[in-house]
Amino acid sequence: MTPAISISRRLRSTPFTKRVTENGVKSYTVYNNMLLPTVFRTLEEDYWHLCEHVQVWDVSVERQVEIDGPDAYKLIQLMTPRNLSRAKVGQCFYIPLCDEDGTIINDPIAIKHSDNIWWLSIADSDVYLWAKGLATGFGLDVKVTEPDVWPLAIQGPKAEDLIARVFGESIRDIRFFGSEILNYGGKDMLVARSGWSKQGGFEVYVNDINLGLQLWDELFKKGADLNVGPGCPNNIERIESGLMSFGNDMDYKDTPYECDLEKYVSVDADIKSLSIEALRNHKSTRKLMGLVIDHEVTLSDMNVLQNDKNIGEIRSQTWSPKYKSQLAFAMLDLAGIEGQTKVMVNTDKGPVKAKLAALPFDFNALGMPAHSK
Amino acid sequence: MTPAISISRRLRSTPFTKRVTENGVKSYTVYNNMLLPTVFRTLEEDYWHLCEHVQVWDVSVERQVEIDGPDAYKLIQLMTPRNLSRAKVGQCFYIPLCDEDGTIINDPIAIKHSDNIWWLSIADSDVYLWAKGLATGFGLDVKVTEPDVWPLAIQGPKAEDLIARVFGESIRDIRFFGSEILNYGGKDMLVARSGWSKQGGFEVYVNDINLGLQLWDELFKKGADLNVGPGCPNNIERIESGLMSFGNDMDYKDTPYECDLEKYVSVDADIKSLSIEALRNHKSTRKLMGLVIDHEVTLSDMNVLQNDKNIGEIRSQTWSPKYKSQLAFAMLDLAGIEGQTKVMVNTDKGPVKAKLAALPFDFNALGMPAHSK
Repeated sequence: MTPAISISRRLRSTPFTKRVTENGVKSYTVYNNMLLPTVFRTLEEDYWHLCEHVQVWDVSVERQVEIDGPDAYKLIQLMTPRNLSRAKVGQCFYIPLCDEDGTIINDPIAIKHSDNIWWLSIADSDVYLWAKGLATGFGLDVKVTEPDVWPLAIQGPKAEDLIARVFGESIRDIRFFGSEILNYGGKDMLVARSGWSKQGGFEVYVNDINLGLQLWDELFKKGADLNVGPGCPNNIERIESGLMSFGNDMDYKDTPYECDLEKYVSVDADIKSLSIEALRNHKSTRKLMGLVIDHEVTLSDMNVLQNDKNIGEIRSQTWSPKYKSQLAFAMLDLAGIEGQTKVMVNTDKGPVKAKLAALPFDFNALGMPAHSK
Repeated sequence: MTPAISISRRLRSTPFTKRVTENGVKSYTVYNNMLLPTVFRTLEEDYWHLCEHVQVWDVSVERQVEIDGPDAYKLIQLMTPRNLSRAKVGQCFYIPLCDEDGTIINDPIAIKHSDNIWWLSIADSDVYLWAKGLATGFGLDVKVTEPDVWPLAIQGPKAEDLIARVFGESIRDIRFFGSEILNYGGKDMLVARSGWSKQGGFEVYVNDINLGLQLWDELFKKGADLNVGPGCPNNIERIESGLMSFGNDMDYKDTPYECDLEKYVSVDADIKSLSIEALRNHKSTRKLMGLVIDHEVTLSDMNVLQNDKNIGEIRSQTWSPKYKSQLAFAMLDLAGIEGQTKVMVNTDKGPVKAKLAALPFDFNALGMPAHSK
């Protein structure tokens, strides 16, 4: 029996929780002390619907940490090894936040609202407290807050059509990770082409609790003929798409190099960043890799083995109905996989072979055709 | 239907999760990104068992933030307005952590291990990140870590007898909020007389993952005739006992004065604390109070009213089987309750009266006799 979730004020509900409940949410996780739906029908039904139609997701858990003041850029640059010195207003940037040891604190989307105002749309750790601590200690001229903003994601191949019906045709011109300030119900809101799937879509940064429900209802009304439905980040889709999750696939003990995020480390840039020195001197001995098992399995533990020696751990995994394979992300010792193409994992039916794959998965190169529903 | 909880690596399991599952845990909450059981049988059965016998609780979610270095006291004193300058090794202190505005960041138990090493046994927010940010910014000579420690609580009127059978008779001499380093299975562990109930008990700071299961099993074996059972912090017991929960009853927007914690603010002490100046100048306009309704109700919202005007919000509430009343903690405007003894709350059967009470509840003074099971 799967245990239930106990809901209390400490696990904040959102402006959309009423609709999420009415739509029959079956399970939740907790993310940034807030409820995040994980399943509505079944994980697999939700998956196919997301790949074929359009879904509305309550992703209020993507809390915004607002850095406001003349030292805003200075503070954010201290927190990330990615060079943001040439960032333009309205741009979104995926940035690892790293400490003095070069290990990851969070991996938010940074949004530059103006020279003095940045938002960090955070993954699951209290960036608010780290930013406050740094600002206080360094005596920076900024105010760090968590404004009342509840992102609503519209994801899936028909997302652009649906969002155009609500926000107007101009949204079609927004580029990937670009954003526009658009008016909804008399209020200006940020609308970005982004979201935690590879099926395409947008995120609306809802900043009015009452307009939230109005927007939800309008999306469902105007999207009826597009087969709009309730949804949420889907574990199958995100693993197939190679989307990593902070806390699951990477954590405080990992560096960006170990997590395939080296392109977000501006190692040669002349920036003042807490982690840049450690990352310049970093020698990786581990790497996050993909694993592919050619049939459905139930893992009995998360160990990865080579010649009976433990060489790493599986961090996320799923059955992929599209590629008829078990897919996993695993943190592996480089020495343990050198020259190898396969490793072993433990299942309830005994050890089985898993093929090593670079991330994100290149299913063509792997010779894995896509099956339909 | 109550939604299920989706478990992933991001919501860490503990050395005891296997036993918790085997004992039929019915629901979880998430606390510091870790699983915390909330119900085993029913909330009320768990409650009576806790009040009458002894329970073993997996409270691994009480993460330890270790501050290690010559500036350890300096950093902790910056974080709390409670004067810790005369703390002795082995003592435990309940301390609010507060920022420059005097508002609460967390309310841990501080444990002084030595002049250079302190632990903060934290409530539900990433004190680790705040402490790291402050240490970095102020350039303090400390290392901030989250060591692998998983507290196991033994709570209930028979807890002392049970823990004496495992750790020896000397534990009877440990005073409330005192601790001893005791050996278990060849390893030194901190054992403190503490825990999140008022039924008496101890917490063992387990620091060896394998010894954890051994200790769990030994407690169950040696406690069989004491009717030992699995348990967890119980919402009924903790509200009856006036134990407040960070995130539920107090949060980042509240000050210690508003949460009845003024005795932990050393307002006249000569200490270097980030919040002390703000707290010296603080004028409370709100206060966390108790509410008592003399029959069982289902609240339809969390508003508290006086003459149809909203004067506050309920933050936690429960039916008390012992006092045959609905009990609540509510944050109330002082102006709204001045000279009043009663307020109104909304239930599914319409508005009802609730009596105001100081916290912790003094059931004798309130003329509320204790009923037995």
